[in-house]
Amino acid sequence: MSRIDGRAPEQLRPVSLARGWSKHAEGSVLVAFGDTRVLCTASFTEGVPRWRKGSGEGWVTAEYSMLPRATNTRGDRESVRGRIGGRTHEISRLIGRSLRAVIDYKALGENTIVLDCDVLQADGGTRTAAITGAYVALADAVSWAQGRKLIKAGRRPLTDTVSAVSVGIVGGAPLLDLCYEEDVRADTDMNVVCTGDGRFVEVQGTAEAEPFDRKELNALLDLAVAGCGDLAAAQRAALEATAD
Amino acid sequence: MSRIDGRAPEQLRPVSLARGWSKHAEGSVLVAFGDTRVLCTASFTEGVPRWRKGSGEGWVTAEYSMLPRATNTRGDRESVRGRIGGRTHEISRLIGRSLRAVIDYKALGENTIVLDCDVLQADGGTRTAAITGAYVALADAVSWAQGRKLIKAGRRPLTDTVSAVSVGIVGGAPLLDLCYEEDVRADTDMNVVCTGDGRFVEVQGTAEAEPFDRKELNALLDLAVAGCGDLAAAQRAALEATAD
Amino acid sequence: MSRIDGRAPEQLRPVSLARGWSKHAEGSVLVAFGDTRVLCTASFTEGVPRWRKGSGEGWVTAEYSMLPRATNTRGDRESVRGRIGGRTHEISRLIGRSLRAVIDYKALGENTIVLDCDVLQADGGTRTAAITGAYVALADAVSWAQGRKLIKAGRRPLTDTVSAVSVGIVGGAPLLDLCYEEDVRADTDMNVVCTGDGRFVEVQGTAEAEPFDRKELNALLDLAVAGCGDLAAAQRAALEATAD
Amino acid sequence: MSRIDGRAPEQLRPVSLARGWSKHAEGSVLVAFGDTRVLCTASFTEGVPRWRKGSGEGWVTAEYSMLPRATNTRGDRESVRGRIGGRTHEISRLIGRSLRAVIDYKALGENTIVLDCDVLQADGGTRTAAITGAYVALADAVSWAQGRKLIKAGRRPLTDTVSAVSVGIVGGAPLLDLCYEEDVRADTDMNVVCTGDGRFVEVQGTAEAEPFDRKELNALLDLAVAGCGDLAAAQRAALEATAD
Amino acid sequence: MSRIDGRAPEQLRPVSLARGWSKHAEGSVLVAFGDTRVLCTASFTEGVPRWRKGSGEGWVTAEYSMLPRATNTRGDRESVRGRIGGRTHEISRLIGRSLRAVIDYKALGENTIVLDCDVLQADGGTRTAAITGAYVALADAVSWAQGRKLIKAGRRPLTDTVSAVSVGIVGGAPLLDLCYEEDVRADTDMNVVCTGDGRFVEVQGTAEAEPFDRKELNALLDLAVAGCGDLAAAQRAALEATAD
Amino acid sequence: MSRIDGRAPEQLRPVSLARGWSKHAEGSVLVAFGDTRVLCTASFTEGVPRWRKGSGEGWVTAEYSMLPRATNTRGDRESVRGRIGGRTHEISRLIGRSLRAVIDYKALGENTIVLDCDVLQADGGTRTAAITGAYVALADAVSWAQGRKLIKAGRRPLTDTVSAVSVGIVGGAPLLDLCYEEDVRADTDMNVVCTGDGRFVEVQGTAEAEPFDRKELNALLDLAVAGCGDLAAAQRAALEATAD
Repeated sequence: MSRIDGRAPEQLRPVSLARGWSKHAEGSVLVAFGDTRVLCTASFTEGVPRWRKGSGEGWVTAEYSMLPRATNTRGDRESVRGRIGGRTHEISRLIGRSLRAVIDYKALGENTIVLDCDVLQADGGTRTAAITGAYVALADAVSWAQGRKLIKAGRRPLTDTVSAVSVGIVGGAPLLDLCYEEDVRADTDMNVVCTGDGRFVEVQGTAEAEPFDRKELNALLDLAVAGCGDLAAAQRAALEATAD
Repeated sequence: MSRIDGRAPEQLRPVSLARGWSKHAEGSVLVAFGDTRVLCTASFTEGVPRWRKGSGEGWVTAEYSMLPRATNTRGDRESVRGRIGGRTHEISRLIGRSLRAVIDYKALGENTIVLDCDVLQADGGTRTAAITGAYVALADAVSWAQGRKLIKAGRRPLTDTVSAVSVGIVGGAPLLDLCYEEDVRADTDMNVVCTGDGRFVEVQGTAEAEPFDRKELNALLDLAVAGCGDLAAAQRAALEATAD
Repeated sequence: MSRIDGRAPEQLRPVSLARGWSKHAEGSVLVAFGDTRVLCTASFTEGVPRWRKGSGEGWVTAEYSMLPRATNTRGDRESVRGRIGGRTHEISRLIGRSLRAVIDYKALGENTIVLDCDVLQADGGTRTAAITGAYVALADAVSWAQGRKLIKAGRRPLTDTVSAVSVGIVGGAPLLDLCYEEDVRADTDMNVVCTGDGRFVEVQGTAEAEPFDRKELNALLDLAVAGCGDLAAAQRAALEATAD
Repeated sequence: MSRIDGRAPEQLRPVSLARGWSKHAEGSVLVAFGDTRVLCTASFTEGVPRWRKGSGEGWVTAEYSMLPRATNTRGDRESVRGRIGGRTHEISRLIGRSLRAVIDYKALGENTIVLDCDVLQADGGTRTAAITGAYVALADAVSWAQGRKLIKAGRRPLTDTVSAVSVGIVGGAPLLDLCYEEDVRADTDMNVVCTGDGRFVEVQGTAEAEPFDRKELNALLDLAVAGCGDLAAAQRAALEATAD
Repeated sequence: MSRIDGRAPEQLRPVSLARGWSKHAEGSVLVAFGDTRVLCTASFTEGVPRWRKGSGEGWVTAEYSMLPRATNTRGDRESVRGRIGGRTHEISRLIGRSLRAVIDYKALGENTIVLDCDVLQADGGTRTAAITGAYVALADAVSWAQGRKLIKAGRRPLTDTVSAVSVGIVGGAPLLDLCYEEDVRADTDMNVVCTGDGRFVEVQGTAEAEPFDRKELNALLDLAVAGCGDLAAAQRAALEATAD
Repeated sequence: MSRIDGRAPEQLRPVSLARGWSKHAEGSVLVAFGDTRVLCTASFTEGVPRWRKGSGEGWVTAEYSMLPRATNTRGDRESVRGRIGGRTHEISRLIGRSLRAVIDYKALGENTIVLDCDVLQADGGTRTAAITGAYVALADAVSWAQGRKLIKAGRRPLTDTVSAVSVGIVGGAPLLDLCYEEDVRADTDMNVVCTGDGRFVEVQGTAEAEPFDRKELNALLDLAVAGCGDLAAAQRAALEATAD
């Protein structure tokens, strides 16, 4: 079976990680997974929230949002509705947890980094693109702080890389990195977050139509681990290049 | 290794499913997983939300909440804060998806069932207890509606049972059905929702401390599938008894 | 005239005050006035709100809420609507004032007790059951604090007991402790809060249909004072028993 | 004992009811009880809320609010805080109930009257001044509608007058119509709403310090009934004069 | 062309500035521009917002609001809607900026003055009446503080007077101080705020229908500057009179 | 005097108008005024808001927002705060009015176009860049609708072009198109919106420090009119090019 955009089942969409997109943020990346584009900025500030003061440890958090016309049909702004929806909350929490999994709070010291992931254009996989891009922005913000001695010399706040990808069963076939059209037709949809060494940070699988069995789950996990490996390579390549 | 409450690693806490707890609701269950107690009510109403009118299909949704002093330290009410937190949103959505996985909307007809899961006392596993109890309340509401001919004769809106359990790795050991003290010490925490035939509806695993590998994931899934089987048996037993 | 449930006009519904219902709260009571069931928890914390710091005096406050399916028809959650309704506000304020009427702030010291009264099932008289049950939870929380020396030895923060009951004129007859069906048919509805010595803390009478005259008011007050006396006896009996 | 402003215990403050204060409203009164000044407007609209359509019956409701500097210390605006406080809710509900007590919904027909009571300057008794003034504005709005044949000929939507006054025990003495300084020193504070024929619509007594006994309650009720009688006379006098 | 109320094009409506309207506020003015009536109160408090502490400088801010029935049709309260509308925000900000233009923060010292402008009756020009009246209330609050030595002797916190007026092109003719009926028919609507020396603090011109050209703009500015001059004279006259 | 970035006083920053930036929107432009970058999307939908139904006329509205890290210091999200700030409201309203000034509602027919202007990076002049870019997105959405016959043949909904620019007095000199550093140092700040024929849609001048006189106002208007002319040329050039 050939995919809607001609990819092989285990193939990612074209990935780009454009560093230094914003002149203000300490780290910023415009990440693209095919037509999905997310602007990820990392804001570094000295100090931590009150509940963490005096601990010697830092904090990392994330906020996800979507521009109203990032999607095919315009959605209402959450600021206009006056409340953040459940989906937004859920994804913001997932991004935050994923990035904290590779943070050594002691090494970060009493500093805070906020990751803002704003979806400029959506075509499936916005949360996985956000995590993958946010990691690069986070790494740049850490470098920025190290350059200004805001992090102690010799400390390495990042313990590994982290990336994420979606997988799903569409028309009976396990596929990697679903675009929107595949996503809406998927029986099962799974988001997997892995560290650079191939271990799991998050596994979130949902039966959209039929429940799935252990064999299907295993096939999806195989695809996802390989995909996260490819994304980790893309992250390393981006970080080795010179930011413009 | 012995557990804090003396259970074997693969052992559930004592489970009870007290049907007919509320005189007003069409279905109601006070579910207990050890000291975790959740009041689940199912409210049946004829008609569906506007976006579903004329489809001939029903709708099922859920809301989860916690009383302020269900936990060891009193939490602020979300009604007083004026907004629902991300965790509440996330769990409400999980419960709704889990129950919809066993609903045949056509058989339900244009009727709506709302599941309210209010945690009266929390000791870990509130969301899995809520799903397990809500299924029983849902089944009772369906029977109630069948008794009143609000669902067409011969239609079976429930395609299977559904239950849920938490698993986690604590001190290196995979454990079933974590109580609160185990939960806070877990390196990895996973919630698994299964249908009665042993397939997956949701798999949500999170590395709280160290990332987890494939072998650990497999051990957790084995535990969870067995635990959900035990819970399905408890659900069947409760439904075969006569509600008071 | 016989009442809908066979009671005499001056007769309370069966009252129960189950102490120690919650394992977390410093005081907790599941109170029932017939089919009305309210879970009352008392949360004791050291310290007082900012405006009271340094005064040497404590504080007591209350929050009332109703589960969505406590009533015959499901109500929207106030947390979902994003605002607390006027009725909820009004009852929370009434409960707080009623309990503060028997508190000696100096004797309590700079400690705060929050009473949460959550209606699990409603059948009329939820506010009066809440006050009556909350008093017992409050007394248990005070004892708990005395046992831990959080209140100075010899201090008695409670100056008296406090209980509450509804009365009303239904079909021309003054009745004590209205159930829901009586309440909706009442011409006049009154809630009365009394201390153990029979004095008034609150008198709130409302003409639902016809205005009422002085004679009717007097008949209602007579009923209410007697009913509060019976409730005070039930409170004393519950507190003399050993909490489970 | 002489009162702070030299009044006798059973004496009202100077009362004025200035009709026609607003050029836009169908009825409007600037009511003063001493230094307490409340602008009451009655807005008449054809039609009723959805839940009342087709009933042939009208609806009357009220909203109370206070300007930020109506009081000695500036209060935050509820619009700025984004939520209405419990006190505001409670008073709005009281005013609405009080005026509905003298409305014949059938005679009003399917029309709605909204009473807005905005406190321009507060010196105690704002809710009782609001009820007393709102009645006159309501009467003017009814006349306006009768003049335009929006209410059927021969129908009398008002069944009686309604007025309200505060009473309290200050320094052991029962006093009528408390000003702010008396109010803060009162042991017991009661608001009483009476129809023109001297019957009760609302009786709301609260022990601010010491509980009160039956004898004190009776003394307060005597004072209040007489005071409401004086206010009813003032209302009639105002309505007999020609509105400017 | 004669205007709807018989005025000449360059003529203000009757202006009144009644000082001392409120007994609580440090400065208060009931300002009328024809049938537009705005109650302006100035609340003086020692101290400044946190972000300004230690600067030695004061702060002045403003809030604008409209009573629900100030207009011909009743509007919903912003407190009931739970959010402040864009128009209210915009006008509050304009009033604050306008008054700060004549404040010497150093001379004011670390004190805060809040101007509340509540529209009691609206007939066009509510924001310009509010600015003009608020200046007088502000001046009174400054005098009050000087009288109590809360402002250092010899300091003059007010550097000039400030007033405002609306102008517009109606039926091709430039007109001063539009009433509501003129305002709705205007092609161009402009609000101009001037200091007493005739310079501009704000110029806000909007093409409601046709864009306007430079010549029309100049004609409107000529009218506005003259009108502000007349208002400045009225402000001086009011402040020279003895407040009641 | 030379400007911070070397421009002449009457010189715009480099302007770019990248059409077709979004694959979903009916019109989309990434506009840059120097380092200020705003993503403008135009969403075309058939139908109009309820209050306009049956009029045969269309509607155009706008929403402005800023990403949290568009600025040098991260700002809180308005969706997280739960309310839209006054500045956001004010700018959204300005953009909407400006674009409606060149719309022929009859020619548009009963269709709605929503302009979303999201500031990705801010360096002064975000509202003027938004208006200038939104016009181009609007023109593309109109062409899109004409191509699909959603607008009747021969109808021209756009009556002219519209563009906007900021001007200000910095260090005594009138300057065109202020960047952020100039903006914070400006004594007077003015935003001017012009149609393609050089007439005014909006003139909003504010004295940030010293009030300004007529001569300064005239100098600013001269600069702004010329600047808007240059922007109108850039808009025409962009629209004549083929969108990618």
